[in-house]
Amino acid sequence: MADKDSPVFGQSVREKEFNLEKDWNFLNTGSYGVTPKCVQEAQQRHQFKMNSHPEKWFRREVEPLYKEATKEAADFVGCDSQDLVFVQNATTGINTVLKSYPYEKEDCILVTNATYGAIKKTCNHVGSNITDGKAIYIEFSIPIESEDQIVEKFKRAIAENPSIKIAVIDHITSPTAMILPVKKIAALCRENGILSMIDGAHAPGQLDLNIEELNVDFYTGNFHKWVFTPRGCAILYINRNHHDWVKPLVTSHNYQRGPYWEFEYQGTRDDTPYTVVPHALQFYKRMGGVSRVREYNSDLLDKGVEMLCSSFDLRRFPIPKSMEAPYMRLLILPKVPGYGTTEEDANRLFAYFAEKYNIVLLVVSVFDHLIIRLSAQIFNTMDDYNQIVDILKDLLKKDDEK
Amino acid sequence: MADKDSPVFGQSVREKEFNLEKDWNFLNTGSYGVTPKCVQEAQQRHQFKMNSHPEKWFRREVEPLYKEATKEAADFVGCDSQDLVFVQNATTGINTVLKSYPYEKEDCILVTNATYGAIKKTCNHVGSNITDGKAIYIEFSIPIESEDQIVEKFKRAIAENPSIKIAVIDHITSPTAMILPVKKIAALCRENGILSMIDGAHAPGQLDLNIEELNVDFYTGNFHKWVFTPRGCAILYINRNHHDWVKPLVTSHNYQRGPYWEFEYQGTRDDTPYTVVPHALQFYKRMGGVSRVREYNSDLLDKGVEMLCSSFDLRRFPIPKSMEAPYMRLLILPKVPGYGTTEEDANRLFAYFAEKYNIVLLVVSVFDHLIIRLSAQIFNTMDDYNQIVDILKDLLKKDDEK
Repeated sequence: MADKDSPVFGQSVREKEFNLEKDWNFLNTGSYGVTPKCVQEAQQRHQFKMNSHPEKWFRREVEPLYKEATKEAADFVGCDSQDLVFVQNATTGINTVLKSYPYEKEDCILVTNATYGAIKKTCNHVGSNITDGKAIYIEFSIPIESEDQIVEKFKRAIAENPSIKIAVIDHITSPTAMILPVKKIAALCRENGILSMIDGAHAPGQLDLNIEELNVDFYTGNFHKWVFTPRGCAILYINRNHHDWVKPLVTSHNYQRGPYWEFEYQGTRDDTPYTVVPHALQFYKRMGGVSRVREYNSDLLDKGVEMLCSSFDLRRFPIPKSMEAPYMRLLILPKVPGYGTTEEDANRLFAYFAEKYNIVLLVVSVFDHLIIRLSAQIFNTMDDYNQIVDILKDLLKKDDEK
Repeated sequence: MADKDSPVFGQSVREKEFNLEKDWNFLNTGSYGVTPKCVQEAQQRHQFKMNSHPEKWFRREVEPLYKEATKEAADFVGCDSQDLVFVQNATTGINTVLKSYPYEKEDCILVTNATYGAIKKTCNHVGSNITDGKAIYIEFSIPIESEDQIVEKFKRAIAENPSIKIAVIDHITSPTAMILPVKKIAALCRENGILSMIDGAHAPGQLDLNIEELNVDFYTGNFHKWVFTPRGCAILYINRNHHDWVKPLVTSHNYQRGPYWEFEYQGTRDDTPYTVVPHALQFYKRMGGVSRVREYNSDLLDKGVEMLCSSFDLRRFPIPKSMEAPYMRLLILPKVPGYGTTEEDANRLFAYFAEKYNIVLLVVSVFDHLIIRLSAQIFNTMDDYNQIVDILKDLLKKDDEK
């Protein structure tokens, strides 16, 4: 329960804390995140400092701010700050690790068909550069009965492919918003001498993270999705066993000084998305922290999903409750008149909601269905979900009229 | 000559167009560049758009702005926009090319001892990853008599090392501010089947660039040093012969769609340093363009150097006039009492100017000398250079007093 000093979520927090464009219904924070006014202002202050005295900023001011941000980020995700560096986004984090690894002939990378498109392409690209190597795919399909079913699929793939050297494992899958049992999968990898690279693109801020407890080799996660930083801010955890060989994609002045320094400076760039991490975490704390935000967002999504399913013929994505992402939920659409189930159809339907109704609602094509991925963030209310009921009803009934 | 509508450079332009911190004397624009108010404001407007409607920004707005920026940047540096992509900085540009190249056993990279420290480290790092390969260094020393002497050194190195596959050639060397004859060196490389990667970190905005006329394989250059963009904005020219194999360091959604698309999207990040390139170029134009800015900066440096040399025992860096960078000049200090000639001494003297006198003046250790690298930008005046005369006199005479 919120106490009397807690901010009132919904429309009130939207107006007070965010610059979101009026007359728009934002139901897809999962894609690009949201940056509160106070964090935008902090970034502008840092950029102003950088511009008003570049030498002071780059030679003196940025480093302590960067170090403090590293420390606070490490505390937030549950690891030692010596093992954490900043990267622009989770895609960069995964590229960094996969492209640092010293592959030998026939080495393979393990990944799943539920992995984010950009990461599949990264695995294919890196795999194609290994002599006789490749990316090996685990195929998921719905319904998913249990976490153990997922672990079992990894077990089988590992047994069948002794040449796997590194596995990319989603903490929360992107289009399908499923929490995977990464701790169990990472343990399985470790038993089989396989490195675990966790793609937590959607995890920080959404899950209570304790990376050290997960006992993984690498973990990357965006802070700009659910931790309220500006875009271009993500963390990469590098287990201490690998500090000697994981290098940033850009070699620079601090080459061979260890992860913190090597990632900290890679030529002149704007590091303010990193330096304002403490401001973003402070905002998160002011909102009541992960537990209160999660309570609000999860409850809202539970109610929204229930309302939509009871209103007409929508199906929940068939996965165990324990695997549902707290801030993102999926609903399978029945056949939509005028739409097939391809990615193009999904994009067309996304555009329909945006252009006709000012609603940002992610529609994806998964497992031969059109699926809507609903997000909830503290500025959303039931009204936002109610708004789509009539539109969906209208879209679906068009067939009956013919 | 400036016409009556031209802005008045010096203190007037400094106050009107820049947010530079008061009571500071900035004589080192060469290191981090300078961003005018109007460009900062344009970036803030773009960042505000991104934050107020992230989906609209990332799905619709950023791409046309990015494309327009690419086109204007290509026009500015003299190449086809299809051959130009944006990277964060020149260091990233060079890393991109050197790490994309498909090396074979014994391949070597050619570089010089005048190359920027971060790039030497990049060459060493990449070289160390090639089986029996390495970075081969050309050693420059002063005095330098002519451009031909430089070309001759490249000729000899190439003749002696048939395993060189790619050469990193500075257009303007960083600590030593020398313009190298890149067109001649690139031609020499081409005759010998060696790829030319030009490091133009300091060139755009300072030189009248026409990359296509240079006939090189790759060219990278910062826009945040002398083209008035925010930090984190550089170009990479990729000759069409190499579009199929040069890949961004971060593989993402647009993998295998060709350079423009592959570099354009590499996960969620803040692309506003790129999208405001037209605003920066517009500012440059409003200041009278490269020719008027160069006239002012070069004249100012000529006078400043003359004044300093006539005031006491300073020596011009002994290179031909044709090799002097128009916005950066070097002066060799005589023995400074209390200082040696190491990098640490240089940093100590840099700090002395900054902390005691609020002067930002680059001091470097080169060829066993302490050297000051003076920059000029449109907000500087002779007063800025006059200010350092008494300080230098004082520093140098300390010995006499003993």
